[in-house]
Amino acid sequence: MISLSSYAGVMENLTNSAEEQQHSSPLTNAWSKKEELNKNQQPKGVGGFVLVHAGAGYHSESKAKEYKHVCKRACQRAVDRLRAGALAVEAVAAALVELEDSPFTNAGMGSNLNLSGEIECDASIMEGKSLQYGAVGAISGIKNPVLVANRLLSEAQKGKLSAGRIPPCFLVGRGAHEWAISHGIPPCPSEKMATKFSVSAYKRNKRKMEVAEKMDTGHNQTKKRRLSGENHSGSLDTVGAVVVDLEGNVAAAVSSGGLAMKHPGRVGQAAHYGCGCWAENARNMNPYSTAVSTSAAALYLLPGCGEHLIRTMLAQECSAAMQSEDAHQALLEAMQNKFISSPFLASEERVLGGVIVLRCCRCVEAQQSQNIQGILVEFLWSHTTESMCVGYMSAQDSKAKTHISRLPPGTIPGQSLAIEGGVCRLMSVVE
Amino acid sequence: MISLSSYAGVMENLTNSAEEQQHSSPLTNAWSKKEELNKNQQPKGVGGFVLVHAGAGYHSESKAKEYKHVCKRACQRAVDRLRAGALAVEAVAAALVELEDSPFTNAGMGSNLNLSGEIECDASIMEGKSLQYGAVGAISGIKNPVLVANRLLSEAQKGKLSAGRIPPCFLVGRGAHEWAISHGIPPCPSEKMATKFSVSAYKRNKRKMEVAEKMDTGHNQTKKRRLSGENHSGSLDTVGAVVVDLEGNVAAAVSSGGLAMKHPGRVGQAAHYGCGCWAENARNMNPYSTAVSTSAAALYLLPGCGEHLIRTMLAQECSAAMQSEDAHQALLEAMQNKFISSPFLASEERVLGGVIVLRCCRCVEAQQSQNIQGILVEFLWSHTTESMCVGYMSAQDSKAKTHISRLPPGTIPGQSLAIEGGVCRLMSVVE
Repeated sequence: MISLSSYAGVMENLTNSAEEQQHSSPLTNAWSKKEELNKNQQPKGVGGFVLVHAGAGYHSESKAKEYKHVCKRACQRAVDRLRAGALAVEAVAAALVELEDSPFTNAGMGSNLNLSGEIECDASIMEGKSLQYGAVGAISGIKNPVLVANRLLSEAQKGKLSAGRIPPCFLVGRGAHEWAISHGIPPCPSEKMATKFSVSAYKRNKRKMEVAEKMDTGHNQTKKRRLSGENHSGSLDTVGAVVVDLEGNVAAAVSSGGLAMKHPGRVGQAAHYGCGCWAENARNMNPYSTAVSTSAAALYLLPGCGEHLIRTMLAQECSAAMQSEDAHQALLEAMQNKFISSPFLASEERVLGGVIVLRCCRCVEAQQSQNIQGILVEFLWSHTTESMCVGYMSAQDSKAKTHISRLPPGTIPGQSLAIEGGVCRLMSVVE
Repeated sequence: MISLSSYAGVMENLTNSAEEQQHSSPLTNAWSKKEELNKNQQPKGVGGFVLVHAGAGYHSESKAKEYKHVCKRACQRAVDRLRAGALAVEAVAAALVELEDSPFTNAGMGSNLNLSGEIECDASIMEGKSLQYGAVGAISGIKNPVLVANRLLSEAQKGKLSAGRIPPCFLVGRGAHEWAISHGIPPCPSEKMATKFSVSAYKRNKRKMEVAEKMDTGHNQTKKRRLSGENHSGSLDTVGAVVVDLEGNVAAAVSSGGLAMKHPGRVGQAAHYGCGCWAENARNMNPYSTAVSTSAAALYLLPGCGEHLIRTMLAQECSAAMQSEDAHQALLEAMQNKFISSPFLASEERVLGGVIVLRCCRCVEAQQSQNIQGILVEFLWSHTTESMCVGYMSAQDSKAKTHISRLPPGTIPGQSLAIEGGVCRLMSVVE
């Protein structure tokens, strides 16, 4: 939309009113907290915006600092790439690498261990311009699964393989690992990817499971299961990011170690097309570019998981909903009607998950002026889990804002939702 | 919708006018060939309807007889189950087992070999009543992958695992194989699943690939690739089925050995939620129950494949479209706008694939009478490939009808489509 070779940027800054207001009010006017400040910044040559999440689940106060720190670093990594002129898809992959590398997230390093004590990761990435997509499922021995997904995407963009063969968009298991190695992505021994925390969580979970299975007999089975559902001593889930670059291209990515104690070979929403992430540039009937990344609770013994996001195709549904005029209302209705009250989850007591969303269109100010071009970015997050950790940053900011969003006190996770967001203008003067 | 314990069936028979008219006219009145005949059949106690496909691709006249025979047997298997009082999901699985067992289809026995000379299969199944779904990807050493998908679905319906763990809906690779064995599904040595045909096709393809890679140098690369795309010496692709039982429940399933010479670990549309199959019973805003199964061309060196069906989510899109009043027009528009002209496939020269569709609602006749209950079943198939092999049968028929649908002469595969179908009434008298 904007030629990178002939502009100077004018950008509005953001404040994070969400930081002051810890509890968002679901179903009310959280969106009215849109911030539009500080028009006095110096123009710069590049721009873009990134929103990341480090999982929807349960964030203890004690760990909040580290989660926020991870999100900050991820935003910074994406912005570094945007400032270097990278497209959205490269920036979103950079953010994901940082999120995967943290031992505090359930993605890449420090992922949940499966039933066999192994790490198997899912990741996917989508580019709004080409609508190309790449994903890996149940991949072991790769430190950054998102880089394999990204490489699948970029290889698909190169066209057909020798003899007209179609390049794959989704690889799983050992085949995915071998493909990664043959494309220059270094292997990482599984024992290096496990952390003290993930190994001790595995041992603890295994003991609990053995106890639960002994107790799972006779009439008290249901009660025992429900009681154990109240246990919150787990790690986080899925991480993800959405990015828009100054050309207006959007991209989204997601990465997860999956459910703790999952069956080997289980693939979750992070590797499911339409479920883990979605990105579509504006075109014809769609006035808005949209990017979505989802997160499920992977807390051991908590009855919510990626399967809910799969069966509701939550990323694609939220993206489609965002073509309505009011972004906040659109996301609210999508989360309510397509997730919490979805007929696909009618038998579920609690529907747990979260999304981050970007949507962008040309600024009205830009449309009224011949030499100003710009993009209006609306960014939102919503979750039905107790909390969700997000971070966001524009390429004009000096540092990222972070926030742990929480359900209002007294509301029930899986039955209520929180929704918040902000707005940012990416302005550039055409020389 | 109908109590199985208290009815006598009245059913109309079908004729297959498609058999006489080998070439359907795309974009015209193929739907006008609806058949409604022979109201004089004796009432019977059970009912239901099945539509199967043995792939959209290129069906040589020489092999047509065997393809039709496979479809007939698959229909018979499903109808046998329906007559025994089975629900749609059981009947659709039974049809798939027959299709997988045929060495002439690229599913189960006789599947395409991958780059390493191994067989890795994808399959999925969905039930319209519960909206539950099960899928396996890149699974080896299992004769009937659809039975693993079906078992995942039925295990998920039982609720949570010990200690509140969520049962998986999608398993891949070695983990999927181990899960199948632990659930009593017998292993099958890979060498038994390969046929003389699939092994000789692998050797032939490997030689061609080596030649093509040698030729893929310098300025004539594109030309060579295109030329090689005209070769049609391959096997069929994906098989699938859609079923409605006399209670009005729909189910859909799909199974595939995937692309010949695919990379190990590649998962195609048959294991992708929303892409390979879809089934939704009527509810609230949706007056019609719908079931869809898709097929992609897996011909070696033919530039069309499951990735197109994945990126367009063709099964779910067709299902959603079928809520419009005119079934024929709805499928025509879905295939044209969401597939051939999809923005997701804008860079593709040819978009190759096919679908079979069922949609059902209460019969008007049934609504007007207190003691007649019945279901109006509309069934359709559409493809952009040169041909598509289908079979269909109601539980009141003595044998299945089969048909090899072909694009009109002179039209270009991947740019034109054929669409045909019929209608059947499942009537039952309430005692």
